[in-house]
Amino acid sequence: MNDVKEFKQLLDEIKWLDADLSGKDFLLTWEKTIKEVQQVLYTAEALKWLHANNISAKCIDPGMAAMQSQDKSSRGRFSFISAARMLGLTVQDLDEDDFFAYEGTETVRETVNMISLLPLTDVIGIRGPLYLGAGNAYMRELAASLDEGVEKGILTQRPGIINLQCDTDHPGQAMADMLHLKHHFHSLERLAGKKITVTWVYSPGFQKPLSLTQGIIGLTTRFGMEVTLAHPEGYNLMPEVMEIASKNAKNSSGSFAVVHSMEQAFKDADVVYALSWDPYGVMEKRSALIRENDHSGLQELDRECQGQNANFKDWECTEEKLIQAGNSAALYLSDSSPHITSVSFRPYVIAAMILNNRFKEPARLLANLRKRNTKRVQEA
Amino acid sequence: MNDVKEFKQLLDEIKWLDADLSGKDFLLTWEKTIKEVQQVLYTAEALKWLHANNISAKCIDPGMAAMQSQDKSSRGRFSFISAARMLGLTVQDLDEDDFFAYEGTETVRETVNMISLLPLTDVIGIRGPLYLGAGNAYMRELAASLDEGVEKGILTQRPGIINLQCDTDHPGQAMADMLHLKHHFHSLERLAGKKITVTWVYSPGFQKPLSLTQGIIGLTTRFGMEVTLAHPEGYNLMPEVMEIASKNAKNSSGSFAVVHSMEQAFKDADVVYALSWDPYGVMEKRSALIRENDHSGLQELDRECQGQNANFKDWECTEEKLIQAGNSAALYLSDSSPHITSVSFRPYVIAAMILNNRFKEPARLLANLRKRNTKRVQEA
Amino acid sequence: MNDVKEFKQLLDEIKWLDADLSGKDFLLTWEKTIKEVQQVLYTAEALKWLHANNISAKCIDPGMAAMQSQDKSSRGRFSFISAARMLGLTVQDLDEDDFFAYEGTETVRETVNMISLLPLTDVIGIRGPLYLGAGNAYMRELAASLDEGVEKGILTQRPGIINLQCDTDHPGQAMADMLHLKHHFHSLERLAGKKITVTWVYSPGFQKPLSLTQGIIGLTTRFGMEVTLAHPEGYNLMPEVMEIASKNAKNSSGSFAVVHSMEQAFKDADVVYALSWDPYGVMEKRSALIRENDHSGLQELDRECQGQNANFKDWECTEEKLIQAGNSAALYLSDSSPHITSVSFRPYVIAAMILNNRFKEPARLLANLRKRNTKRVQEA
Repeated sequence: MNDVKEFKQLLDEIKWLDADLSGKDFLLTWEKTIKEVQQVLYTAEALKWLHANNISAKCIDPGMAAMQSQDKSSRGRFSFISAARMLGLTVQDLDEDDFFAYEGTETVRETVNMISLLPLTDVIGIRGPLYLGAGNAYMRELAASLDEGVEKGILTQRPGIINLQCDTDHPGQAMADMLHLKHHFHSLERLAGKKITVTWVYSPGFQKPLSLTQGIIGLTTRFGMEVTLAHPEGYNLMPEVMEIASKNAKNSSGSFAVVHSMEQAFKDADVVYALSWDPYGVMEKRSALIRENDHSGLQELDRECQGQNANFKDWECTEEKLIQAGNSAALYLSDSSPHITSVSFRPYVIAAMILNNRFKEPARLLANLRKRNTKRVQEA
Repeated sequence: MNDVKEFKQLLDEIKWLDADLSGKDFLLTWEKTIKEVQQVLYTAEALKWLHANNISAKCIDPGMAAMQSQDKSSRGRFSFISAARMLGLTVQDLDEDDFFAYEGTETVRETVNMISLLPLTDVIGIRGPLYLGAGNAYMRELAASLDEGVEKGILTQRPGIINLQCDTDHPGQAMADMLHLKHHFHSLERLAGKKITVTWVYSPGFQKPLSLTQGIIGLTTRFGMEVTLAHPEGYNLMPEVMEIASKNAKNSSGSFAVVHSMEQAFKDADVVYALSWDPYGVMEKRSALIRENDHSGLQELDRECQGQNANFKDWECTEEKLIQAGNSAALYLSDSSPHITSVSFRPYVIAAMILNNRFKEPARLLANLRKRNTKRVQEA
Repeated sequence: MNDVKEFKQLLDEIKWLDADLSGKDFLLTWEKTIKEVQQVLYTAEALKWLHANNISAKCIDPGMAAMQSQDKSSRGRFSFISAARMLGLTVQDLDEDDFFAYEGTETVRETVNMISLLPLTDVIGIRGPLYLGAGNAYMRELAASLDEGVEKGILTQRPGIINLQCDTDHPGQAMADMLHLKHHFHSLERLAGKKITVTWVYSPGFQKPLSLTQGIIGLTTRFGMEVTLAHPEGYNLMPEVMEIASKNAKNSSGSFAVVHSMEQAFKDADVVYALSWDPYGVMEKRSALIRENDHSGLQELDRECQGQNANFKDWECTEEKLIQAGNSAALYLSDSSPHITSVSFRPYVIAAMILNNRFKEPARLLANLRKRNTKRVQEA
């Protein structure tokens, strides 16, 4: 159906990049080299090509994936399951109880108990706690425990850890958005110089994490894009991520600026990405209250936060408004429908993260899968 | 083990029927032609033959099925999972939250959000809300959203929808019962002229849906059977389904009658099917109360309904009573044990619904599966 | 990677044992012959070898396993799922509701209803109720119902039952511990004459079942070991299991003794296994209260039990204490970390239980799996 040339070009890109992500947890995009990120993106596209051409991508069969997710009903959950199944892995939930409160009180002891569950597990997907200092830090603790488990002979294989969203980053969705941009502008190279505005928008809810916004500014700044972050005064992100975005922009010959006006956000932008998040200050307070288990404090904070949000009801951005503002050419993205085409890239991106974690030579594997040519749906 | 002739005859029947259900959701049996229904029945038997002969029927591998079920512990749940696994699909629950209350308030927006979860999903099994106007209508809304998702490029493949029971019909169980009758009377053709009585029976519970009874009268009337519906005055079904049953009977040269006496139900019947359901009027009130979220009204209605049911405690029917009534030759069916042999057909019927939804030429596929001859259980 | 000689030796052992566990439920180790137990152990090691050598052990594909587990977050759960997946089976939870309270009140009727769910199920893993008289008895009732279901034609295949822990025994963990001992002492034969002390230790919790302790004394006594059970006065086990252990010791030319002092437990032991359990008397009372659904009585009993436990806080045993006591050479085992290496054998042991239940000639099957040489993880 689809042109096999397209597939071969993707493999050529991967071979040329020659990055090795095997055995390395995927926790933050900015810890990865640009080549490593690109390799994940091209791998995702190659997996999408295989699916579109009805070729099975099973390569770990039978395989086990464990998933830990704070809440049960989320897009991230379904994406990980779809991704894992594509490669032949079966996903089993690891309840929070298994992780956090296993038969005792001492943290290290618990973690080792938990790890002993996983002798046959190939990969662990974690949608970690979204409050500051908890999500990504937890993944690193787990990683250290897994390494220890291997050293002590409790584990014969080291499962890879995939960040499905945490307090700091949202690699799967951010990379899926990059693929969406790539398709819109026809190549990753052509993203250089394109103007993207990531703008805060009013939304009636609260308790909105920083991770997707941070993921987007942490990633778009690596492709030479002119990135503007627009938000009302006070709606800051984590300072260390702001620094990373600035450094990234410098290194990629792009730019990174912050503005506090919606009008500026609209002007001349090639892409407008509308997102909602809680101010960093609120997140800091909330994280402290969660640690102190202060329920009434949390309710009070939520009320305050809602009140503060209501001051910025005019920070509203829709595709229609964009057109009214005279910027009808801009690509409009949002984490709510109907602008969610990038979501459909997500399972392939997550599958690519898993595949690169497990295989040293992804291009060779992908070529072999095409050659094997096992039909996913039988040709009757 | 089993005779291969039997299998070939089934394939010949399917080839002769030459119905094409591919790409078509299965929502109500009476929306399908009699050929389409028969094709599902013969496909189910062919799948049962493959299983009995230890031949793997995997034909979508890896594949994803999504399941939405109102309650978690039901026969329907396990049947769908068994059916999906038989073909190579993995089932993932779609929590109600994902469907009904996803990140917002606007219905269309939510549905599109939900659909974006499914880029790799092959089939969706729904055990929909069982109150009037909700179950089947919901499936149709979802179908329209899926079509829209494909149009807009959010989905690259259109998952098929399988009705696992709704307010109106229960196609999987009704067709499993047809297979049970076929086996008892040796062929579908011989069902013509056979007398079946579907009778209401007293049962201490309440909140019993109409769907299985409606499924049975909607389906048996298409095979030229003499169908009698017996129930106390007031225990009516949905008027539109009654009309369909009458029309079916006319078209198939069978008959359809309603009686309000148990004695008449027993007399001369070749088959007696004992079921419990709430009166249509009660269902209408309940559905309105559910929409109004009127909990005390619902409790009041349940009490009333229980009281009303208690007036008909003499509507009791067991195999033993049937024998006492001098009709020991009749086949006795019931939705409770030990008369549930038809349940064991259900996973094959559901697998047949899935298979026909995904494959244009089921006979050819089934023949190829037998030729491929992959053993399900290895021959040590 | 690993030596193929090792694998062939395991198969030679299995062939020499020539035990046939096929079609037989695995409910208690002491109902099995010593040859049957050994066959499970060697099969587990052969499966571990296949995994270590990246050879797929899929042999029932697609296959269905049902799991019933009282609580959702347990090592047993994950072990069973890992074990089932290794062989190609998919695990589906059977909620307690499906089993215990299905559409009615009459027990037999319910069980038949439940059984009708399982026409395609190959194996059922049960972590049954852990209070006296409930767990193992339940499995036997279920077994009888399954036999009846096959007789009546409701089931076309008889799923095997695997005990994942009950009130009486914990075969999977006990056999995993035997493999741990085998590896430590280099062979099962060399276990004869080795001194093992199974000692009660203080732990702040309560409601601790007897099954693992009973599993350990019921199994170690069959290998000619000198087994000492150490516990404070009153912390007895089930009398019938004590008798079995004594009889086993006599038959295997080992010994079995009970002491009420920790010092004795430490002295000269080659292995010290530290475990916590509730006294048999408390378990009897608890079981009666559970049957009477007496919640306040249960709380009262738990308080009493905690108070009683607190009298024995000096029954503390750690690896460090062991070294202090001058027995640094002893192997220290415990059901909590970091002494849980045996846990990593458990999925293989459970997979071996399943495999032996489904296959008459496990050695031949395992040899064929190696010959087939399907790579679990593709060689890129």
